[in-house]
Amino acid sequence: MFKKLSAEFLGTFWLVFGGCGSAVLAAAFPAVGIGLLGVSFAFGLTVLTMAYAVGGISGGHFNPAVSVGLTVAGKFPASSLVGYIIAQVLGAIVAAAVLYVIASGKADFQLGGFAANGYGEHSPGGYSLTAALVIEVVMTFFFLFIILGATHGRVPSGFAPIAIGLALTLIHLVSIPVTNTSVNPARSTGQALFVGDWALSQLWLFWLAPIVGAAIAGIVWKIVGEDD
Amino acid sequence: MFKKLSAEFLGTFWLVFGGCGSAVLAAAFPAVGIGLLGVSFAFGLTVLTMAYAVGGISGGHFNPAVSVGLTVAGKFPASSLVGYIIAQVLGAIVAAAVLYVIASGKADFQLGGFAANGYGEHSPGGYSLTAALVIEVVMTFFFLFIILGATHGRVPSGFAPIAIGLALTLIHLVSIPVTNTSVNPARSTGQALFVGDWALSQLWLFWLAPIVGAAIAGIVWKIVGEDD
Amino acid sequence: MFKKLSAEFLGTFWLVFGGCGSAVLAAAFPAVGIGLLGVSFAFGLTVLTMAYAVGGISGGHFNPAVSVGLTVAGKFPASSLVGYIIAQVLGAIVAAAVLYVIASGKADFQLGGFAANGYGEHSPGGYSLTAALVIEVVMTFFFLFIILGATHGRVPSGFAPIAIGLALTLIHLVSIPVTNTSVNPARSTGQALFVGDWALSQLWLFWLAPIVGAAIAGIVWKIVGEDD
Amino acid sequence: MFKKLSAEFLGTFWLVFGGCGSAVLAAAFPAVGIGLLGVSFAFGLTVLTMAYAVGGISGGHFNPAVSVGLTVAGKFPASSLVGYIIAQVLGAIVAAAVLYVIASGKADFQLGGFAANGYGEHSPGGYSLTAALVIEVVMTFFFLFIILGATHGRVPSGFAPIAIGLALTLIHLVSIPVTNTSVNPARSTGQALFVGDWALSQLWLFWLAPIVGAAIAGIVWKIVGEDD
Repeated sequence: MFKKLSAEFLGTFWLVFGGCGSAVLAAAFPAVGIGLLGVSFAFGLTVLTMAYAVGGISGGHFNPAVSVGLTVAGKFPASSLVGYIIAQVLGAIVAAAVLYVIASGKADFQLGGFAANGYGEHSPGGYSLTAALVIEVVMTFFFLFIILGATHGRVPSGFAPIAIGLALTLIHLVSIPVTNTSVNPARSTGQALFVGDWALSQLWLFWLAPIVGAAIAGIVWKIVGEDD
Repeated sequence: MFKKLSAEFLGTFWLVFGGCGSAVLAAAFPAVGIGLLGVSFAFGLTVLTMAYAVGGISGGHFNPAVSVGLTVAGKFPASSLVGYIIAQVLGAIVAAAVLYVIASGKADFQLGGFAANGYGEHSPGGYSLTAALVIEVVMTFFFLFIILGATHGRVPSGFAPIAIGLALTLIHLVSIPVTNTSVNPARSTGQALFVGDWALSQLWLFWLAPIVGAAIAGIVWKIVGEDD
Repeated sequence: MFKKLSAEFLGTFWLVFGGCGSAVLAAAFPAVGIGLLGVSFAFGLTVLTMAYAVGGISGGHFNPAVSVGLTVAGKFPASSLVGYIIAQVLGAIVAAAVLYVIASGKADFQLGGFAANGYGEHSPGGYSLTAALVIEVVMTFFFLFIILGATHGRVPSGFAPIAIGLALTLIHLVSIPVTNTSVNPARSTGQALFVGDWALSQLWLFWLAPIVGAAIAGIVWKIVGEDD
Repeated sequence: MFKKLSAEFLGTFWLVFGGCGSAVLAAAFPAVGIGLLGVSFAFGLTVLTMAYAVGGISGGHFNPAVSVGLTVAGKFPASSLVGYIIAQVLGAIVAAAVLYVIASGKADFQLGGFAANGYGEHSPGGYSLTAALVIEVVMTFFFLFIILGATHGRVPSGFAPIAIGLALTLIHLVSIPVTNTSVNPARSTGQALFVGDWALSQLWLFWLAPIVGAAIAGIVWKIVGEDD
């Protein structure tokens, strides 16, 4: 279990450090910044790369909603859930701290949104609470559905990290303007702790919606995806 | 058949919600928008991801033109065609509805083109009916040709979703300025129902051209691609 | 042989139509254009997709320099070389013609460079003849070296189209500003015929340099890459 | 050993010529430049493509920090380390020289930063020495951790170049603004020799930090990643 929890800690660190790091450091770099497209690739590639690296150790969840969804689908033991979620949240917090150290290493540093998730006036595009709730549920539903499908025995082994990582890229391509994209309560928590204030008071949505979407996917997959 | 139709419904939902969603929500986001390049990746990744997830259940068509082309090539039973097409069109319509709910969740929302397909004055770049017709036929021809080739027994199993998904990305990289890129009558129908007006009156082209291109590919593949 | 030549014709059509098409139609589209990054992905994805589709039929060259390099390396029979090159050049010319029909289907159409290759005052960035010669030789050398390596028996089967297609993307990411990137005499010929004038008088370089680079790669691979 | 060193020489040439070449020639090309996103893909694709081409010959390190990290993890013989590092540094220097020849082939050529790595006033975004040190250690740690994981026997063979190449893309998506991204002492050395001055006097950090990060990864992997 130590190896599994270490893998989840490191994987979630990488997801937050790579994904949020690209947003904070490189998205709006003058004239040649990577934009939301680059941030979308960064998030997806954190999962693609670490799923190859440690997928065989811990399963490569890096996300409490993924662990919950897999439990609902009967693919992950409920007894391991709390340990995994603690390792994931710790990985996200430490990643946010290291990112803070680096980002603050320039003269004109301003914390800004620090890639935290938000809705209403803290949505990047000014989208409402309802829009945020709907998109986070729908996106996490499909994320889990793809995870369950791509790791099923029907698919030749080795391809799942490509499908899952690029699913996360796709999710960001659509939903950054709405909520800055969570689909991952650990990722939301790490950044919110450093932003404080509004980010903490809106954090409930980014635990609730991803977990609801993931749980629905676990149920739907059992109906649509499993052989009889 | 219930599982197959559910898979086609969900897959086409994802194609429209992810592809058109990225266009509506993120393409022109100020300063850091994903542009047509990001939209092209989004469309391709919807197919790549869901083909891994449910390709083993329904074949992963998500597109009436694909179902028709595979039928012409002798790879899909004509008796399943109507059911598949209904599931695909329903998936596209529901996706457009959910996208509408989210997109309208901001104060200054305007429907605009809502990623509908068009030609003439409704072509993004002002291209004529002829240009639209030619490019939709050619693009769908190659899309089906690649699908038939990449799923052939000659290709090691597992790679087809990569080839097919990225083919759809490539198609969008070229043809968004001409027609906003259809090659998929279901995708065109979902958005046109919300735009109404010109989008509905131009919808015929986005059923006709993709299906003609797909059918030609089915015939050409039987000549060029099959072993004697 | 009919199937092989058809496959090369269609594959080279797709390379030119997809690659040059993205450049002509979408690269500089106002505000959301795909830029040189999108064009680079388009060229690479033409090869990735068609190598999966017809690689098992013709080998998937789509490029006279590739056919020459493989012949020098002892992987392709010299007796098939002329037929392959004719099919490739025809595919490129027909693709340029279809692209012309579409591109001219808007009111303010101007031919411009039409994605033709050039050096000196016709280099996109104003690079000299020497720079053009060096970069085309180096780029085609590595393209062939990667093709020979990725199709070697040491590499698990199925991955070569990914390596080769993305090598072409990489080549374009570097060299479009210098020559608009050829590494493929057929691709250069198709576009030059429509531009005429300077494009035809500079065409010699885009046959000479790619073939020289490819031939050197064939020799070097036999020394470095083959088992003793 | 001649074949292995030749493979490392060519692979590191390609990494520097492709990665730094895209930065120097194409990143800031007017209006349609590839930006930091394109440069990130270029670096990653150099490794992805050459790892397929020569991974079976030399292991495909192309980077002294990789060779050191693999040695610490017990995957590479210390006796081969010096030879590999010399071949890598030579490849990087020759690549920088060829790039110089091409880049200087335009009328208004200015050397500028020539894609060299730097910190403080030579950091692209003005980041401090501490920020540079931390990010280079962290990034190289994860690069090696992913290399060790993706090449482990648990992962189906053939996927490692995708994971490793795209890990390098991800690393650049985050860290170009901080140091121009090294994680590779050979890549830093080649460019620094042509820039001279500040680039040479800051070069120590781009040997120290990547090697420290890589060595830590080798140790951590033995604890977390290996079976008992």
